[in-house]
Amino acid sequence: MSEKRRQVVILGAGFGGLQVARGLDGADMDVVIVDRNNHHLFQPLLYQVASAGLAPGTITVPIRSVVGRQKNTRVLLADAERIDLDRQEVVLADGEHLPYDDLVVAVGARNNFFGNTHWAKHATGLKDVRDALSIRERILLSFEAAERSNDPNERQRLTTFVVIGGGPTGVEMAGAISELGRQVLADDYPNVPADSVRVVLVEMAKRVLTSFDEDLSYEAERQLEELGVELRLGQPVTDIQDGYVMLGDERLDVSVVVWASGVKAEAIAAESAMPQDWNGRLMVDGHCCVKGHPSVFAIGDAAHFVPEGEEEPLPGLGAVAMQQGIFLAKQLRRRAARKPLETFKYKDRGTMATVGRSRAVVQGGIKMTGFFAWIAWCLVHVILLMGFRNRAVVLFNWVWAYVTYKRGARLITGQVPIRTTDQALAEKADEAPGQLRESA
Amino acid sequence: MSEKRRQVVILGAGFGGLQVARGLDGADMDVVIVDRNNHHLFQPLLYQVASAGLAPGTITVPIRSVVGRQKNTRVLLADAERIDLDRQEVVLADGEHLPYDDLVVAVGARNNFFGNTHWAKHATGLKDVRDALSIRERILLSFEAAERSNDPNERQRLTTFVVIGGGPTGVEMAGAISELGRQVLADDYPNVPADSVRVVLVEMAKRVLTSFDEDLSYEAERQLEELGVELRLGQPVTDIQDGYVMLGDERLDVSVVVWASGVKAEAIAAESAMPQDWNGRLMVDGHCCVKGHPSVFAIGDAAHFVPEGEEEPLPGLGAVAMQQGIFLAKQLRRRAARKPLETFKYKDRGTMATVGRSRAVVQGGIKMTGFFAWIAWCLVHVILLMGFRNRAVVLFNWVWAYVTYKRGARLITGQVPIRTTDQALAEKADEAPGQLRESA
Repeated sequence: MSEKRRQVVILGAGFGGLQVARGLDGADMDVVIVDRNNHHLFQPLLYQVASAGLAPGTITVPIRSVVGRQKNTRVLLADAERIDLDRQEVVLADGEHLPYDDLVVAVGARNNFFGNTHWAKHATGLKDVRDALSIRERILLSFEAAERSNDPNERQRLTTFVVIGGGPTGVEMAGAISELGRQVLADDYPNVPADSVRVVLVEMAKRVLTSFDEDLSYEAERQLEELGVELRLGQPVTDIQDGYVMLGDERLDVSVVVWASGVKAEAIAAESAMPQDWNGRLMVDGHCCVKGHPSVFAIGDAAHFVPEGEEEPLPGLGAVAMQQGIFLAKQLRRRAARKPLETFKYKDRGTMATVGRSRAVVQGGIKMTGFFAWIAWCLVHVILLMGFRNRAVVLFNWVWAYVTYKRGARLITGQVPIRTTDQALAEKADEAPGQLRESA
Repeated sequence: MSEKRRQVVILGAGFGGLQVARGLDGADMDVVIVDRNNHHLFQPLLYQVASAGLAPGTITVPIRSVVGRQKNTRVLLADAERIDLDRQEVVLADGEHLPYDDLVVAVGARNNFFGNTHWAKHATGLKDVRDALSIRERILLSFEAAERSNDPNERQRLTTFVVIGGGPTGVEMAGAISELGRQVLADDYPNVPADSVRVVLVEMAKRVLTSFDEDLSYEAERQLEELGVELRLGQPVTDIQDGYVMLGDERLDVSVVVWASGVKAEAIAAESAMPQDWNGRLMVDGHCCVKGHPSVFAIGDAAHFVPEGEEEPLPGLGAVAMQQGIFLAKQLRRRAARKPLETFKYKDRGTMATVGRSRAVVQGGIKMTGFFAWIAWCLVHVILLMGFRNRAVVLFNWVWAYVTYKRGARLITGQVPIRTTDQALAEKADEAPGQLRESA
């Protein structure tokens, strides 16, 4: 055993990063996890926080409580600002330098507004708890304002919600807002008739859920329309301003705009000098090692991984990140033992998306739609959720919501609006143009 | 029946206001509830939100979901700015005027800093959800900062917490922070030894819980010391600044200061032209009617009610507010029917305070301390909590915390610090000195 232990720095405690850390439990290395949040977030259920179904605490666990018993692991609540590749150091926003022997970039993705930074001020993505709380608060405040407004046009605007992007997040969000507005809230707001609540899902492609087979896309579209969601397929968004969205030449007066359209890697990856794709994702080889940088690994949404013999990179799914994390922990142990690295192989166990109550589509070994697909979706998500307490509380909330048609998290906490990370970035960009690169 | 229905405006949907509204269900009147929050808050458990034990959504219910089925009742999410006594109107911050035939002032109390407005910037009361989240966030961030600090003095400061005020809220808060810090968090922060966590409870009187009998005060003090809380009795706070508190000439370097020392009625009562006590509470007669203002009633923390034959006003307890609310709904019906008003009689069913796990004091028909007092405390609070879902989730969280010694709500959401109502008021006072009256 060498005098100096190997230093592993993991940036990000999402699905990927946390698996790397857990896989290194007991290894003869010093492991440091850096994350700007104190919690691991179960992102697939974040839209339920945004739609007042779940409290944020039920889909998060403190990172420390997950790795607290690992003696070789430290957790830093800090903003990693840049990677000094020459010195093999991560520089934190507060000035601390963290040296590494192996660096794991597992920072995940941010919303990508494709160069239109001002859109971030009016459209909210769904990447962290603050995003979700901001959406929840603005939906609830919109109903309060609509209830009090005497102007029918303004009332219609206040109860019009637009979701941009027809992938799983967009589909789930549109369905959830429509259910929340028409089935739950409308009852409590006498001046807001249920059928006046308008939820518009905009997708540039000709169908939703393009990563699924066509028949499942059509089934999801049918389910969305059943819930009262208006589909605008094959339509690009041309502008987003305060209070309205432009679809080509058509102006849509809206209250809340949810952005579920595009992501790019977090700045620390996208702004590094390492090879990357148009989305800022780091180009990695079969070992998840960044090309030309043998000490740096990237996994999950921060990595561009093309499986051997294929052309398309792996999709940005939690399952990919988790499998890569488990794989990478093993490789780091092999490297420490001077064994050769293995090649990562993704096992696709299928994908699923839920549209709402009793509605979902599942594509894996078998295809499922409707009630049984929805039950499968619920089960898989409860099982994947971390922590017994969270599982129990989420399950209880779902059963309660199913039986009562109510939502348990209709809390408005702020008189002061919640400022999202994207808004903060956009304001920073306004102050110092050219300082922030946005992949266009 | 008269052509024009009687208009009842209720300011505040706390324990008192909500009971008035519910008691008027079906009455031949138009009832309007005005509250600046969309939820009713179960304040007795707010300290558990502040100490990361419960999520805020579990101790709140949307006001609309409580009175949603009452056809004669409207809910306005609005800030009531002033009462125009001559025109019998409430003026809202957004300019709307609400005419009333009967006005119920049930606005509750705010923190009273006794003229030291700058204390509000450094000390946080425990009056609304935002207060509690702000305290929770700053406690958790203090541990994160202490974990990373290399300076032992700074580390000690970061893990020193001061609670000012030895009433039930202060006692409960001090016990809860001590448990959180020493039993829950210390495990997860290798650089923070459990016995370095310092919680100081400051009380100007010679004992805590002065509203209880002396033997129960001493028992509570013993229980607090068992939990590691440092008691400073008979000591007045002379200043609160950023990072320290002055107790006489002694300087205490601290991280988070919780204010549980004094309250005064909300501004709309305290700044009205109606007769009031030194705390801004409106002077009411035996019918809860404000003296000299037959159309205005005040209940709960906003009222100064002296029972017949006694000298002291009723204490600021949820039980008083609820009983007055139920009483007042009945009186408003009697008045509409032109029957004479009755006199309110408070039924004292006892008081209780918990110090922490298995520790509490109860004073009512019987006195209890320790484990059984604690079980009684838990039962009473779960039963009083509104909504089946909340009861179930809170009970589950308590059992889970009891068994595992963990806390379920250790979430830091903000990069931006939460700004409390008191801070906002203090800043406003800085900008326009003399505009805000603070009872000294």
